[in-house]
Amino acid sequence: MKKILLIMVSIALLNIDSYAQQALWGGEQITSPEVKEDHSVTFRLQAPNAKEVKISGDWMPAEGWTPGSVAMTKDEKGLWSYTTAALSSDLYGYSFSVDGMKTTDPNNVYLIRDVASVTNVFMVSGGKADLYKVTKVPHGSVTRRWYNSPGNGMERRMTIYTPAGYETGKDKYPVLYLLHGMGGDEEAWIALGRTSQILDNLIAQGKAKPMIVVMTNGNVAQEAAPGESSLGMYKPTFQLPNTMDGKFEETFTDVIKFVESNYRVKADKADRAIAGLSMGGYHSLHISRYYPNTFDYVGLFSAAIMTDPKNTSKVYENFDSTLKSQMTNGYKLYWIGIGKADFLYKNVSDYRAKLDEIGMKYTYRESEGGHTWTNWRVYLSEFAPLLFK
Amino acid sequence: MKKILLIMVSIALLNIDSYAQQALWGGEQITSPEVKEDHSVTFRLQAPNAKEVKISGDWMPAEGWTPGSVAMTKDEKGLWSYTTAALSSDLYGYSFSVDGMKTTDPNNVYLIRDVASVTNVFMVSGGKADLYKVTKVPHGSVTRRWYNSPGNGMERRMTIYTPAGYETGKDKYPVLYLLHGMGGDEEAWIALGRTSQILDNLIAQGKAKPMIVVMTNGNVAQEAAPGESSLGMYKPTFQLPNTMDGKFEETFTDVIKFVESNYRVKADKADRAIAGLSMGGYHSLHISRYYPNTFDYVGLFSAAIMTDPKNTSKVYENFDSTLKSQMTNGYKLYWIGIGKADFLYKNVSDYRAKLDEIGMKYTYRESEGGHTWTNWRVYLSEFAPLLFK
Repeated sequence: MKKILLIMVSIALLNIDSYAQQALWGGEQITSPEVKEDHSVTFRLQAPNAKEVKISGDWMPAEGWTPGSVAMTKDEKGLWSYTTAALSSDLYGYSFSVDGMKTTDPNNVYLIRDVASVTNVFMVSGGKADLYKVTKVPHGSVTRRWYNSPGNGMERRMTIYTPAGYETGKDKYPVLYLLHGMGGDEEAWIALGRTSQILDNLIAQGKAKPMIVVMTNGNVAQEAAPGESSLGMYKPTFQLPNTMDGKFEETFTDVIKFVESNYRVKADKADRAIAGLSMGGYHSLHISRYYPNTFDYVGLFSAAIMTDPKNTSKVYENFDSTLKSQMTNGYKLYWIGIGKADFLYKNVSDYRAKLDEIGMKYTYRESEGGHTWTNWRVYLSEFAPLLFK
Repeated sequence: MKKILLIMVSIALLNIDSYAQQALWGGEQITSPEVKEDHSVTFRLQAPNAKEVKISGDWMPAEGWTPGSVAMTKDEKGLWSYTTAALSSDLYGYSFSVDGMKTTDPNNVYLIRDVASVTNVFMVSGGKADLYKVTKVPHGSVTRRWYNSPGNGMERRMTIYTPAGYETGKDKYPVLYLLHGMGGDEEAWIALGRTSQILDNLIAQGKAKPMIVVMTNGNVAQEAAPGESSLGMYKPTFQLPNTMDGKFEETFTDVIKFVESNYRVKADKADRAIAGLSMGGYHSLHISRYYPNTFDYVGLFSAAIMTDPKNTSKVYENFDSTLKSQMTNGYKLYWIGIGKADFLYKNVSDYRAKLDEIGMKYTYRESEGGHTWTNWRVYLSEFAPLLFK
């Protein structure tokens, strides 16, 4: 007994003292968020001196340009709390506002960066988010790897998902190139998009074919995501030069060549897919027609399509002729998804009209909601099972 | 001109509206932290309603169990700021306290989790942190991969660094097994330890041999880091069962077997190193003597060594005899590093006395400071160049 006590004391010593020595890292004993069985969620924040604490979450309807928010209630110990109604299954983001200052939840270590903001996240199970969870199925590998892009004159970073069994087997795999939106980078789909979880789960369920997913960086001015390049830890910006002027489309062959000479892939049209969200949808549209006999599968998720014929960007040169080539060469799937409330809804409608006019077939998926990761995760979950059949 | 304007408007539209639709992600136009040429650093926080704002950073001396902190100054617009003296080159962490509530810096997207806390970080160049930066040198790849551990009856996750050229060449590489401390996991060394940057830079400078670095999860009760396992997004805890009772040591053969059958490695003693910090130092000490003819290089960084002979943990069985076997079998380097202010200083001194007594040679490195990542990054930077020579 005395010996057991000694061990416990030794361990406690390690615990307390290393806390003391790296005391900055201490955490409070509050649970937030607490996702309950009925899918309601309670948030808590200890802020005894605050006069007003609000919570803002992406499940709340936005009020024009202002995100929705709701006041939290303070108890006698200075603990503010708020409980939602039952939420539908999804990955959600939220932040607190303490006397007007936006802040993260100190009791939630799960945060995801989107452009220049970092937001706490949580998941509600029991529906579509079940695909976003890590489950006890065979897991693919996720690699951050650098490749040479002669077209951009730099080494660049990508994120690659290889399905379970890739490293140990001998099969060749099809490839999905999955592109981010404006302000995003090679971290966006793996973090906010839950790509590795969605693919692991769909493949394990037999709903999607095992495939490699290549998440490149579509900002050709960047070597890599903020903090991951030689620029160091700078403040990310939304808008970057040369992202929508054809440069990425032109140099995308560097990505394909790298993947096809460095991975065990089926290097043919039937085994190549390209899809992206927002700006990545624009990129997917244009890359697939720049190289009009290269991809059998194209996915445009809330695509930032600018159909105005006055657009002078080089990317629009030969738009109609290359699109017709793509149509004539044939493909298996041209998938368009958009939310009814998306600010790009009309652009996508106009583009569909253009496609209808030339007789180019596509599959159309109209969802609720707007220009959100909620939709893009759903689109990936629906698009991936249609590939490489 | 009109056409250019149209494009700009289109892009601005994308910008503003997607901000509106995913308005939660907006950022303020404040720069914080601002690292200046003279290595002083200015922090800023907009909190007009706050009465008292403090900053706490790990460059400040701690006051007993309380981390150091200093008051920030408010200007007429409600912007709080504080400028440090010139800081020595390092990776630093900090947090704000707003009217007593600890918070992150909303203008700094760079955060690292350590156990149950997430802390903003920044770097000051011009010294040792130059090794921690991403530089324009050939980059290794970093992969999160799952492996089967029959000894633990589960699939488990590891982080693997393969040096530049690994994928495209045919050479076999030596392996460093690099272990985290209590409360850490397979993310600790790559995030807080800056392992991939340190190795990329040391290898590019010709100071370290190209090597594979395997960062396992030493908490055998866990499949993976918090948020990365089937347990979902739970609140991490410091103390986990079975982390220091011999179970990890026993089952470490699963890790070695996996690496040596799945990577192009030199599978011999001369090409195996094991090192770890704190609890990982304890693990390295015991794993290297459990398998006393397996590692030519051992690194104990601020190792949590419990030399009390009354310790009854199974891990201490045959301590002396296996240590002597290790000594007799021979090795090239047994490296011990500890900070003068580390709470484990005496434990390490006692262990050195034990080694002296049996005539077991080691290299001893005593640094300033305590039980901190500042020291562990330095130890890795000094230890890696000594390997596989």
